[in-house]
Amino acid sequence: MHQLATELFPICRSLTGQGVRTTLNLLTQHVIGLQVHEVASGTPAFDWVIPPEWNIHDAYVIDPSGQKIIDFKKHNLHVMGYSEPVDCTLEYSQLVSHLYSLPEQPSAIPYITSYYQRRWGFCITHEQLQALPLGQYKVKIDSSLTDGHMTYGELFIAGETEDEILLSTYICHPSMANNELSGPVVATFLAKWLQQCPTRRYSYRIVFLPETIGSIYYLSKHLEQLQKNVKAGFVLTCLGDERTYSYLPSRLGSTLADRVATHVLKHLVSAFDSYRFLDRGSDERQYCAPGVDLPVCSVMRSKYAEYPEYHTSLDDLSLVTPAGLEGGYDVLQACLKLLEHNAFYKVTVKCEPQMGKRGLYPTISTKDSTAQVANMMNFLAYADGTKDLIEIADIIEVYAGDLYDIAIVLEREGLLKQSFVPH
Amino acid sequence: MHQLATELFPICRSLTGQGVRTTLNLLTQHVIGLQVHEVASGTPAFDWVIPPEWNIHDAYVIDPSGQKIIDFKKHNLHVMGYSEPVDCTLEYSQLVSHLYSLPEQPSAIPYITSYYQRRWGFCITHEQLQALPLGQYKVKIDSSLTDGHMTYGELFIAGETEDEILLSTYICHPSMANNELSGPVVATFLAKWLQQCPTRRYSYRIVFLPETIGSIYYLSKHLEQLQKNVKAGFVLTCLGDERTYSYLPSRLGSTLADRVATHVLKHLVSAFDSYRFLDRGSDERQYCAPGVDLPVCSVMRSKYAEYPEYHTSLDDLSLVTPAGLEGGYDVLQACLKLLEHNAFYKVTVKCEPQMGKRGLYPTISTKDSTAQVANMMNFLAYADGTKDLIEIADIIEVYAGDLYDIAIVLEREGLLKQSFVPH
Amino acid sequence: MHQLATELFPICRSLTGQGVRTTLNLLTQHVIGLQVHEVASGTPAFDWVIPPEWNIHDAYVIDPSGQKIIDFKKHNLHVMGYSEPVDCTLEYSQLVSHLYSLPEQPSAIPYITSYYQRRWGFCITHEQLQALPLGQYKVKIDSSLTDGHMTYGELFIAGETEDEILLSTYICHPSMANNELSGPVVATFLAKWLQQCPTRRYSYRIVFLPETIGSIYYLSKHLEQLQKNVKAGFVLTCLGDERTYSYLPSRLGSTLADRVATHVLKHLVSAFDSYRFLDRGSDERQYCAPGVDLPVCSVMRSKYAEYPEYHTSLDDLSLVTPAGLEGGYDVLQACLKLLEHNAFYKVTVKCEPQMGKRGLYPTISTKDSTAQVANMMNFLAYADGTKDLIEIADIIEVYAGDLYDIAIVLEREGLLKQSFVPH
Repeated sequence: MHQLATELFPICRSLTGQGVRTTLNLLTQHVIGLQVHEVASGTPAFDWVIPPEWNIHDAYVIDPSGQKIIDFKKHNLHVMGYSEPVDCTLEYSQLVSHLYSLPEQPSAIPYITSYYQRRWGFCITHEQLQALPLGQYKVKIDSSLTDGHMTYGELFIAGETEDEILLSTYICHPSMANNELSGPVVATFLAKWLQQCPTRRYSYRIVFLPETIGSIYYLSKHLEQLQKNVKAGFVLTCLGDERTYSYLPSRLGSTLADRVATHVLKHLVSAFDSYRFLDRGSDERQYCAPGVDLPVCSVMRSKYAEYPEYHTSLDDLSLVTPAGLEGGYDVLQACLKLLEHNAFYKVTVKCEPQMGKRGLYPTISTKDSTAQVANMMNFLAYADGTKDLIEIADIIEVYAGDLYDIAIVLEREGLLKQSFVPH
Repeated sequence: MHQLATELFPICRSLTGQGVRTTLNLLTQHVIGLQVHEVASGTPAFDWVIPPEWNIHDAYVIDPSGQKIIDFKKHNLHVMGYSEPVDCTLEYSQLVSHLYSLPEQPSAIPYITSYYQRRWGFCITHEQLQALPLGQYKVKIDSSLTDGHMTYGELFIAGETEDEILLSTYICHPSMANNELSGPVVATFLAKWLQQCPTRRYSYRIVFLPETIGSIYYLSKHLEQLQKNVKAGFVLTCLGDERTYSYLPSRLGSTLADRVATHVLKHLVSAFDSYRFLDRGSDERQYCAPGVDLPVCSVMRSKYAEYPEYHTSLDDLSLVTPAGLEGGYDVLQACLKLLEHNAFYKVTVKCEPQMGKRGLYPTISTKDSTAQVANMMNFLAYADGTKDLIEIADIIEVYAGDLYDIAIVLEREGLLKQSFVPH
Repeated sequence: MHQLATELFPICRSLTGQGVRTTLNLLTQHVIGLQVHEVASGTPAFDWVIPPEWNIHDAYVIDPSGQKIIDFKKHNLHVMGYSEPVDCTLEYSQLVSHLYSLPEQPSAIPYITSYYQRRWGFCITHEQLQALPLGQYKVKIDSSLTDGHMTYGELFIAGETEDEILLSTYICHPSMANNELSGPVVATFLAKWLQQCPTRRYSYRIVFLPETIGSIYYLSKHLEQLQKNVKAGFVLTCLGDERTYSYLPSRLGSTLADRVATHVLKHLVSAFDSYRFLDRGSDERQYCAPGVDLPVCSVMRSKYAEYPEYHTSLDDLSLVTPAGLEGGYDVLQACLKLLEHNAFYKVTVKCEPQMGKRGLYPTISTKDSTAQVANMMNFLAYADGTKDLIEIADIIEVYAGDLYDIAIVLEREGLLKQSFVPH
């Protein structure tokens, strides 16, 4: 995963443009069946319209001494996203109103965009800003804003049922690692794993979209079908550093996705930060909007807007590590496994079954013997057809994953039946 | 308000009699449209009967030395409410069984009544009681208990709908300020303010009743209509001191009135005492009785029975201050304003609206820009048609009053619709 | 009760056999109408089958020096329950695999059974085990495992309605006092008290069963009738020591039985240990199984598996005392009394009734007078037909038992009506 992120890192992505296409083309080498779609500028999408396509070839600033002091080719964060073309000479005093820096993080280049109002600008470290001499500067941004397309990727992996799990990630940020590449990279490797699974109860829909406008467009085209089929979903973002884990709920707050996410985090990681929907900031804003209300939440490592490197040049591939990505991947994979195993269970006999005659119970009763089979007997005691595996595991205070094998044994013995709706 | 309380203070009110009439007549000078009603003694009211009318002209006790030592004209608390007439001479030992004092508050005259059993009595300070000499006393109470009427006041202020807000206060205590006059005085000034409001969504019903028998009679005449129309109500009492604020819930506990009262208190005052319905003591006992169940609670300053001056001559116009009354008035007015603004809101577009094209969003996205419009976006995120303004404000942790202007802007932009029932 | 326990203590009970019959015969001398039932070995009961009948006449071990060192006649715990017959001579090394002791409780004889797999064994103190010399031992168990019967007792005490309270206790443990005899002994004395009560709203069904197989058989025969009639039930076990009180909920957790048990314990004992259904271990495992779901919980003194003497020879009649049994009896009796008094109450008048005219209210109103009648007025305030006595008592924070007399007075005055379903 870290290697894929390294390949994707230098590409200058934005809402639209060649950077997005290059990114998706690279991902199609990893994921069989990933479809790339193009949507024309000007296409309406609910309250929005697909913006012009932005492409950029070069951008720089030359200082009074003739030195190229800001160079898009050295770091693509140097140019404000969606900057209009410019080619002129101006005074220091005119230039500075187009320069963005972070006084409190003087060595970081900030990430700034102006998608919906025409502007141009450069982003530089505050250290560099403070060292700029007076005098005349030559400024060039070789960009284009034209009727073109918005590009996104979509992968559908069919399962045994039409019930779907939605994984959504975004591909619209330039060179940043945790708050961008960790998402599509983990999504790609989850897709590879899902495609290798021999059976899948659920179908999986994995989308790689520009944030906000991408998910709004996608919802505007597929809302009814998604509302019918999607049983749980996750926004994949910020999955690559090693510092913590984070959970951000859906708006409704107790959907299947939320229950799975919190159960897995509670049992598989040592600690995690639990946010509120008020702290939202990614595409759950659209998936959970009133009238959309898909069961979508986020499981992350360090959450966007909560770590110091966020939206700066410091969010790079030293912050995102192989171990960090592995942790993010593992937790999401555990969520998908739990979704695959989750069902409503109902015991088939009245009263406790006689486990002894099936070899499932110690035949000699001692002071400790009940403790040994507690999980199995507790599972049976709560398998009343109204509780799914997650609820049973919560009640008996074990990780649901520890019950997968027990469920198989008890089903094989004819003592349990499962169904996907409460009985 | 304090000046009106000062005018009303000396009047000797009781359940019935001229004192009530004088009080109501004085209030009609402030409130256009205040109707005064008379109900004949003997009229049944649910389990009760309107008592005889009690009037008192004079009352005193003359001590063995011929000195008038207790004098109704000096303080009307000196006579037990509803004392029957008496005119006799008796020994000290006979007199003392008719004298009431408070050993633990030796300089206070207690407030004592005997509405439903014929008695006579005088209330004096414990200091005075302890100084009484032996010997013969002359006692005179020039009162009458006759078939007459119970008097109450009623004001109806029509609004845009038949939905009503009920304000109930009482006018049956003699010279006491917090636990009597603060209620009708604040009610009077709220009425004046409501009459000056250009529009009112709700109609307002403001009643000035003798406590208990008055509200029981009123409910016996108008129960069905009140149950149909009253959406929220408040018992106005103990609104005049400066020490604290208090909230006493309705019996059902989470009516619209309760939600408004607790939201306003939580956001507008620095602290308040939250009581239980078990601590009730005024007309919510009737409004919230089983089978009546009107949505009525109390917002007070220092609650009856909880401050030392309660039901004594110390509950006077030094305890009740202009600032204290202003605080009581402000909180009730804020409750009525919130009722007027409260509605169920529903966003009209799917997904987040594009605020930028409406000039409602910063067009340049920076690290801090989301925070700036958080209230607006959070309002939209929770405006799903199932939550009223109070619930939305509670979820997003702001005072509902801070959302009034946002609601107006978003409605004007066509992004929000309001309704008075959940959609 | 302690005397009866003393009579029952020496009998060697097990799931089946003469010990159970002797025990039940002794109880029939105390309880008129106790029926003894026999169920043939091999009879199916849900997932189970009634086991062979086990009887034992003698058992001992003779050591290499010819001394009888383990003797069933000295303590019936010395023989593993359901031991098959054996008569042989064997080496020390062969013998030890049939010996059971508790290293951590070296002076206690453990209680061990092997109901469903043929075995034989002796239970001894760890001190004795460690002192056994090498050499040849003579072993004799004069037992029989034959087609016979399982025996249980059943008492039905008819009440005014077909609604039933179920009391279930077990009679399958040999000489142990808290975790065995306290249950049938308290059940016996509750039966005697119930039979002497002049009226009973509920019918009472009291069963004396071998644990697990007994309740499973009983449920397999009577499930529908029990589900129809049983409104509350208690497993009676561990009711005889003086250390604490314990509550173990039903599986559903808030049945009438649970509400009664927790209300009584909260108000009548100074402290109690509250367990979860996960801590279950007696016949609530069957009564509360999915698809059975009877409203049955347990009120105990020191709970099985939670006190050191449990399932050892130390659980004897010095641990169980007259005072301990009395405490257990008192709490259960209070539960049954509360069940008998519990009803949904509804006030018959609108608004507060006038208590004064009925002599139920002080006729002179003073600062303290409301407090004096608080319980009565609070009862009336919450008697809205949707709350039973337990809920009303919980709300007004008094013991329901303190409201029995008030309910009678208010019903007599025509102010309250009761019903057994919410109105």
